[in-house]
Amino acid sequence: MPGTPSKAKYEICLIGSGGVGTIASLVLTKSALARVTVVLRSKYNYVSEHGWEIDSVDHGRISGWKPYRVVRSAAEAATAEGTTDWEDENSRDGEVKQVEYDYVVVATKALPSLNPVVDMISPVITPGETTVVLIQNGIGIEEDIVKTYPGNVVMSSVSHIGSEIKEPNIVVQVGKDVSKMGSHLHAGVDDATSMAKAKSFVDMYVAGGAHTCELISNIQTARWEKLLWNGTFNTVCALMLMNVGELQRSKGRETLLVPMMWEIWRIAEAAGHAMPESIVQWMAYRLPNDCAYRPSMLLDLENERPMEVDVILGNALSKAREVGVETPVLSVVYNLLVLEEWKIGQRKVGET
Amino acid sequence: MPGTPSKAKYEICLIGSGGVGTIASLVLTKSALARVTVVLRSKYNYVSEHGWEIDSVDHGRISGWKPYRVVRSAAEAATAEGTTDWEDENSRDGEVKQVEYDYVVVATKALPSLNPVVDMISPVITPGETTVVLIQNGIGIEEDIVKTYPGNVVMSSVSHIGSEIKEPNIVVQVGKDVSKMGSHLHAGVDDATSMAKAKSFVDMYVAGGAHTCELISNIQTARWEKLLWNGTFNTVCALMLMNVGELQRSKGRETLLVPMMWEIWRIAEAAGHAMPESIVQWMAYRLPNDCAYRPSMLLDLENERPMEVDVILGNALSKAREVGVETPVLSVVYNLLVLEEWKIGQRKVGET
Repeated sequence: MPGTPSKAKYEICLIGSGGVGTIASLVLTKSALARVTVVLRSKYNYVSEHGWEIDSVDHGRISGWKPYRVVRSAAEAATAEGTTDWEDENSRDGEVKQVEYDYVVVATKALPSLNPVVDMISPVITPGETTVVLIQNGIGIEEDIVKTYPGNVVMSSVSHIGSEIKEPNIVVQVGKDVSKMGSHLHAGVDDATSMAKAKSFVDMYVAGGAHTCELISNIQTARWEKLLWNGTFNTVCALMLMNVGELQRSKGRETLLVPMMWEIWRIAEAAGHAMPESIVQWMAYRLPNDCAYRPSMLLDLENERPMEVDVILGNALSKAREVGVETPVLSVVYNLLVLEEWKIGQRKVGET
Repeated sequence: MPGTPSKAKYEICLIGSGGVGTIASLVLTKSALARVTVVLRSKYNYVSEHGWEIDSVDHGRISGWKPYRVVRSAAEAATAEGTTDWEDENSRDGEVKQVEYDYVVVATKALPSLNPVVDMISPVITPGETTVVLIQNGIGIEEDIVKTYPGNVVMSSVSHIGSEIKEPNIVVQVGKDVSKMGSHLHAGVDDATSMAKAKSFVDMYVAGGAHTCELISNIQTARWEKLLWNGTFNTVCALMLMNVGELQRSKGRETLLVPMMWEIWRIAEAAGHAMPESIVQWMAYRLPNDCAYRPSMLLDLENERPMEVDVILGNALSKAREVGVETPVLSVVYNLLVLEEWKIGQRKVGET
């Protein structure tokens, strides 16, 4: 497989092979620095046989592409069973080899109450060793990881990529892979180690041919910045079943979105992640009024899939209470989206 | 026609012959004190020929019922043309007789920006004479009438009746006709006159066999009381496309409705219409959790009909600003419903 060395520098396990995760697995593989094991659930049978059909603005067309290994579960990823080269390297008689991962990359939708990341990753984490990389939306998503694995490096990525899966195995990436990554510093790991692991990951990601991947020192500020969009356009488009342009033409931007953006801005500021004031105007008015973009939460709601309400608004509101910022509009939109989730829950058994 | 004297004590014009208005026209006619002219638009042709088929919890089954006169417009109602008895009474050669109405009853949906009541009633108002009776939802609906007809008595009714029209001419009244009525006192008319006109109307309404009709001294308090329901269950059921029981089971009552009720309660108090505190608990918890009731605004939204957002929330919010009461939840729900109206407006040319 081109780009996949038989013994790479880093062992990587990637969970969540949707539009974002599959491109990440390709980039990491192309770096020639990583051996990537991807956990697939429903798509395992098809993709393990046929691979992915990729049509990417960054990487061109690639047919039948597979990462180093495709497995059905994190538990399976944890063992070296069936991977002859690992067995060759490490075999002791009669023992199932465990794989020690350098990085576990999580690119799932962030649904902490349905599908907590700490449960998802537990089979593939070596305490004190494995770096957890969260390519996910929202705020406060690192907390649970640090609590459960206090000796592990946690880093996260704010990704701006337009990429989606079309059934059964087609990946269409129309928007360039632009991301900011950084380590989430915490008391359990010395900062130099955290930053070094983050730098190695970013170097690898750049080497793999991502359009832009920037290592930044305050990843939380970047997360709040993205929340200015995700907590406003994304949530209200979903609630109102309106696309971006409709929300703008209806004046909902002025009556709701801009006030919500200022609430987010003030929470971030009070939480130590101040952004320039001008960002609100820019975020609110950068798109044209005929923009037909339908944000992810709207698509989730229309398809009765779980929405990222907790990490996008719930955690921001918890932070607001902690730092004493009033959130009249965000709170109502949050409570209304919780009702939407209740309605979906009434119609469907929760899926992950 | 039984109950319709050839020369009644009161001339009444009724505009808005839906479920509420048609029962009102029946009650007023049955009092034997009124001669009722009803303005019909789309239903004129059918009803003027076949009358109404009424199935009423208060009045039983009545087939082919018509009020004294059915006309196509308020302008037509203003003339006595074609009504031989009026002509007999008042005729002067070659002159089209004008009818002086004692009461003009408005039972339309309250849509001030689409269809202002003052425009609707202008042909049938005799300045300084005609009493305007508003059987409508909302708050602040009397203001425009007083401004335009400063010398006329204005009264209003808070109606609790379950009655609806099924096409083309069937009226089904399943909920008893229970209402509170009172005069809206203002500087242009002395209070004694206002109260006397209101009392005469209520006496007539009681004589006509309404289940309960109570003359009260502070009709505005009754309007705010009803707004505790209409501004909360009615609006949020519409916004969320949920029935009453769903909203209760989803905990939306606790996260949204009760806070909204307290906001309404505080606006009313600050505006001089204090209600007992216990009313909020009663209003919020009186219905069972399996209640499948779908409030009017929800039905309007589902059928893409104009909603009474202005009079139910808009006017209450104006009053809140006037009296300095904060309305964080009501304001957001209002702004979201304005977006729903915008969406409906995009799909349909505004109807009245």
